[in-house]
Amino acid sequence: MRPKNQTSSKPGLWETGGELALLARIRARAAQSAGAGVRLGIGDDCALLGVGAGEELAVTTDLSIAGRHFRLDWHPPEVVGHRTLARGLSDLAAMGARPVAAFLSLGLPRELVRCEKGRGKSWVDRFYDGFLALAELHKTPLAGGDLAESPVAVADIVLVGAVRHGQALLRSGARAGDWLYVTGKLGGAAAGLAGLAAEAEKHASGAKALIHPADLTRGLKPTPPSGSSFSATLQPHWYPQPRVAQGLLLARRGLPTAALDISDGLSTDLNRLCEESGVAAEVDAAALPIFPGATLEQALHGGEDYELLFTSAPGTRIPRAIAGVAVTRIGRVINASGRGHARRPQATLITAQGAQPLEARGWEHFS
Amino acid sequence: MRPKNQTSSKPGLWETGGELALLARIRARAAQSAGAGVRLGIGDDCALLGVGAGEELAVTTDLSIAGRHFRLDWHPPEVVGHRTLARGLSDLAAMGARPVAAFLSLGLPRELVRCEKGRGKSWVDRFYDGFLALAELHKTPLAGGDLAESPVAVADIVLVGAVRHGQALLRSGARAGDWLYVTGKLGGAAAGLAGLAAEAEKHASGAKALIHPADLTRGLKPTPPSGSSFSATLQPHWYPQPRVAQGLLLARRGLPTAALDISDGLSTDLNRLCEESGVAAEVDAAALPIFPGATLEQALHGGEDYELLFTSAPGTRIPRAIAGVAVTRIGRVINASGRGHARRPQATLITAQGAQPLEARGWEHFS
Repeated sequence: MRPKNQTSSKPGLWETGGELALLARIRARAAQSAGAGVRLGIGDDCALLGVGAGEELAVTTDLSIAGRHFRLDWHPPEVVGHRTLARGLSDLAAMGARPVAAFLSLGLPRELVRCEKGRGKSWVDRFYDGFLALAELHKTPLAGGDLAESPVAVADIVLVGAVRHGQALLRSGARAGDWLYVTGKLGGAAAGLAGLAAEAEKHASGAKALIHPADLTRGLKPTPPSGSSFSATLQPHWYPQPRVAQGLLLARRGLPTAALDISDGLSTDLNRLCEESGVAAEVDAAALPIFPGATLEQALHGGEDYELLFTSAPGTRIPRAIAGVAVTRIGRVINASGRGHARRPQATLITAQGAQPLEARGWEHFS
Repeated sequence: MRPKNQTSSKPGLWETGGELALLARIRARAAQSAGAGVRLGIGDDCALLGVGAGEELAVTTDLSIAGRHFRLDWHPPEVVGHRTLARGLSDLAAMGARPVAAFLSLGLPRELVRCEKGRGKSWVDRFYDGFLALAELHKTPLAGGDLAESPVAVADIVLVGAVRHGQALLRSGARAGDWLYVTGKLGGAAAGLAGLAAEAEKHASGAKALIHPADLTRGLKPTPPSGSSFSATLQPHWYPQPRVAQGLLLARRGLPTAALDISDGLSTDLNRLCEESGVAAEVDAAALPIFPGATLEQALHGGEDYELLFTSAPGTRIPRAIAGVAVTRIGRVINASGRGHARRPQATLITAQGAQPLEARGWEHFS
């Protein structure tokens, strides 16, 4: 993306002129989003960032690959852009860090950089529409990245955040007796994906593309799902909302003892929290905030909800909602049952039928 | 790489157990390289980094894609690992920043994660051998990243550095009258690549792999090329040395007015410096430090030398060598010839035959 990195901008490799024009557009659009922490943005060998005295940096990277984390025939480009950034922002939220800057490395087949005939925008321009809309919502300037031609579309998102020294929410601080909470509702993304898969099944013998181009931009602005139309059902899967404000408030008030985001499913991420903290946990099935239309299975094992999962010391007053997002107590932290059992599930699901191991069965992307 | 990001670690996707074991190995090896600036490394949602008061952060990302930036049949895995990190470190060097931490997102076909029969190490383990050897040389801890299955091998390197506020070397500070310098020698990487291509031509009808597996690890430790054997000729291409110490010293002494690294060739990168500074430049062909065995063309247009190109005010005393690497004056900065000529080459080559435009003809990877 930076001039230095235009390794593929020579004539004949990508559409001549097209990529240079794209880079100029990205640079212009990114400049509009400049934040106070970005002292030098796109255009030099590195970006220069500043954070406050007494702050630490939180840094995360997430790689998304076509056919694995998204599908070009299932996900409109705006959705891929939104989801790419949401993954990174959610990691900052899980640490209780405020976003300072984003960096994006994109590898794209040349047809995704070309403008479509009869339509003004190329795939990559629409990808940036989705990406930058979410960036603006979270005041996260795009400060750099890279752009190259690739046989398969790949996007690596890097988020740099800042958090006051000692305030970062770690995975390792949960203790027996703590209570277990989640933000928002679970299973919505998995339910939306299941809906997409069902639609794809229907269309398997018909149209090649699942989503008609005219429908692709409709859902660009995140709206609360109504549960009625197909498009609304897709909202949690297409436009997950990273809980940045919620993570920030929790960290600033020092409420959680441990936290992470649910990217691969409650079962998988809860077992990770248990492992890093050296504890076990019990989840009350009846207490789970299940997304309307989603199943218990989807709420337990569906990935990409990007809600926060956190623990707090017993008796800590946790708000019932933060910035409009509900917070629900779903269980408790208990002592690990023994030593050397790191590979065994440390989470238990409590239902009316009794207790059963809650094994990590996180969502397996598209393979 | 972080547990949270093991999106592809479910059994049946990658070799069962292989990836988890790999992640454990990476985490253990990365922990050994922990630097003072890394307060929390691999294993949580984000890494936590600290920099000094009065320091800014320098951040860069570089995407490498198989078939484009490297070839699996031309480059041993150690070489791909070394070059991946070298690209990022070179960007820090160009800003005069000290490395604080590296992050690596890897997308790999599953056969590169499996152990080869009869050999102890998988491709990815050997990739990390090359990567971590260079990281150790530059005291750069691997603090995080991501790992996913991909149909094509991709590596996105992120480097976070620190530089004293106001000391960063920018591309935009060159002024007419400044002198133009480069570190080291130019064209060696392009000459090595040309040698590889010639060898490949020879082997086209014979052996499938250009480099015999037994030869792959031979050049792991960077040694000065002797110019005699094929392996020595390859050193600048296989094991480019990012000029971190040189960039640091230049920035700390405040010697350059502008700087960048030569990643895409002198002609291309000099024109970038001119464009960002709003100036033009003249290069004396006779003054160019051409790598032994390289041609003038390779020195002018060959990419991936990763030397520093910088300018300094006339009369500034520049050391003849920094940390064992020669510094050579190769030309001067002059006024840009007019307005609105941003697309025209702003660099001129002076030879015995007179002056000619030095057009950006940077190296075109492997396409």
